[in-house]
Amino acid sequence: MSTTPDNQTEVKPADFTAADLSSLCQAITPADAAVLNRAQARLDNLTKPQGSLGKLEMLAARTCAITGRLDCRLQRKIILTFAADHGVTEEGISKFPPEVTIQMIHNFLGGGAGVNVLARHVGAEVRVIDVGAAGEVAADGLISRKVRPGTANIAKGPAMSQEEALAAIKVGLDTAREAIADGAEILGTGEMGIGNTTPSAALFAALLPVPVNLVTGLGTGIDQQARQRKVEVIEQALKVNHAQLTQPLPALAAVGGLEIAAICGVILQAAKSRVPVVVDGFISSAAALVAMRLAPLVRDYCFFSHMSAEQGHKIFFQEMELEPLLHLDLRLGEGTGAALAMGLVDAGLKIMHEMATFGEAGVSQG
Amino acid sequence: MSTTPDNQTEVKPADFTAADLSSLCQAITPADAAVLNRAQARLDNLTKPQGSLGKLEMLAARTCAITGRLDCRLQRKIILTFAADHGVTEEGISKFPPEVTIQMIHNFLGGGAGVNVLARHVGAEVRVIDVGAAGEVAADGLISRKVRPGTANIAKGPAMSQEEALAAIKVGLDTAREAIADGAEILGTGEMGIGNTTPSAALFAALLPVPVNLVTGLGTGIDQQARQRKVEVIEQALKVNHAQLTQPLPALAAVGGLEIAAICGVILQAAKSRVPVVVDGFISSAAALVAMRLAPLVRDYCFFSHMSAEQGHKIFFQEMELEPLLHLDLRLGEGTGAALAMGLVDAGLKIMHEMATFGEAGVSQG
Repeated sequence: MSTTPDNQTEVKPADFTAADLSSLCQAITPADAAVLNRAQARLDNLTKPQGSLGKLEMLAARTCAITGRLDCRLQRKIILTFAADHGVTEEGISKFPPEVTIQMIHNFLGGGAGVNVLARHVGAEVRVIDVGAAGEVAADGLISRKVRPGTANIAKGPAMSQEEALAAIKVGLDTAREAIADGAEILGTGEMGIGNTTPSAALFAALLPVPVNLVTGLGTGIDQQARQRKVEVIEQALKVNHAQLTQPLPALAAVGGLEIAAICGVILQAAKSRVPVVVDGFISSAAALVAMRLAPLVRDYCFFSHMSAEQGHKIFFQEMELEPLLHLDLRLGEGTGAALAMGLVDAGLKIMHEMATFGEAGVSQG
Repeated sequence: MSTTPDNQTEVKPADFTAADLSSLCQAITPADAAVLNRAQARLDNLTKPQGSLGKLEMLAARTCAITGRLDCRLQRKIILTFAADHGVTEEGISKFPPEVTIQMIHNFLGGGAGVNVLARHVGAEVRVIDVGAAGEVAADGLISRKVRPGTANIAKGPAMSQEEALAAIKVGLDTAREAIADGAEILGTGEMGIGNTTPSAALFAALLPVPVNLVTGLGTGIDQQARQRKVEVIEQALKVNHAQLTQPLPALAAVGGLEIAAICGVILQAAKSRVPVVVDGFISSAAALVAMRLAPLVRDYCFFSHMSAEQGHKIFFQEMELEPLLHLDLRLGEGTGAALAMGLVDAGLKIMHEMATFGEAGVSQG
């Protein structure tokens, strides 16, 4: 990770307007169906029964359709992990204290967190972005793009202004564009923010929409009594912010989070740039939901990495008719699920490029 | 792969008796519960909510319990892919002609098959063993341990004699022991044998036991009419071999296959040697079922890699109360699912060894 002055840019809300966001969303086009078919034709000619590598084949063909290229090889993979804090933690909805967000930023930069280990495992790089930690953080390698030091308490009012939400989205757009300019052929999303299953559940409840109770889980490990309290806090947040919840951008500002907004930006930029993006878990899926409500075609560019153990994630997949790749009962976030799923996309592309065809291997077709 | 004279040993049935098999099975002991607890204690002290890496943590802890070591790192991974033919193909139960078995042996040795690509992806080696191809095969790198050139047609009588089944089990025991002696810290199973979903379904039907229709699927891609014919062939096989089906070894000889017997041997040897073994798909699971019926404790040593798209695999998991790791709609065999799942075991162990503890990283606990 570099520590150039560019990493310390202050994000000014006025830099990116709702009209800019709307233009960006309109510029997103579908993945290339013709390339999808050509990729599948190549897969069908490899020495295996047609379709017998299941989702690996789908991953390869979709990656080709996304990039518009049959020769995509994912030479460089970058996971963008955004850290931010949440005013709603004052309601006691998390098991861990909010100072853990900044402690974990240092852990990420030191290479000792779960996402670091799993990123190394699949040959991916982790970039850590402070988009809204509740305190000063200066550390080598940190990309500092703080929009504000944590959100306000959503149980009492909006998390942030719409301008701040736009600025946080822009942090995602910018860091994704920078990663792509640096050679990333696939992006992964990740986050760290004590309390952030609460705004995520609020967004699911508001935008799917579904009852709060269905999408409110145990987070980092609260008990059932604390979960009931969390449900009440989220219901209060939805009541207080009621007028903002029918449209995705106002809802994101009202009950979302700065890292959620940034991840939404990453997903939009990936779609705009025709780069596949691997969506991590529960919180990243809330960001993907906002992105899909803003620009439904981003769906073509997303791979949903895994079904989280967090109650409510399966409601999201059911309601959106999406299917996650892995079922490993993960519930850590950070980008850990995205890292593992990147390895599967890689495997799919290797199948396409490295397997022999029936003709090359002299194998009879069925 | 070496091509020493040792690889060309002729397997003599009398080398390994039913009494030898019984002694081996009795020598298998449970995985080490104390080490499991110590491994989980270490995992619980890493910078993540307890249990938040789900099945990755389970894989790490179980690998420690299997090996009896907390420092296991899977430096060397070996997949053993056994090729054999099936007399029952004369009933027209497969989409591909039987000569494909030998054609695919050459493809494995050339590195162009699915298992080669996925093994390279996870840093595993593939060893190819001819335990019963229906023809002479001589090729650099092939481990030739042919017991007989394909089985007899199970719709008309036993697939092989009990002595031949024991000899094929011994091929698995020997090749597993050789791989472990060469440094393998984890084994994967794989197979190639045109027609081999048919004997596998027959074994599931006989040993779970369940109705044939439930465990008979489309194999490499037959249509529903051909599947109905396959059900009838398997029912005929169970009728003809009726007297042999109540005990695992006679059932294996009567309606099994040479590669299935060899994989059963690999699983028994892994358990005996306290090495984890990753069971591939539908056919490998039939072998695992025989192994578990012979020695129930082998269950402790197996990781079931994936839920195959082959109808019937989920019946096996339900009946045995087992849970596969991956759900990717794979149905290729060869060891492809085992390769991918080995990557997950590796990831779990890296989590255990490479993540920082709360103390090391200065992160507050919940």
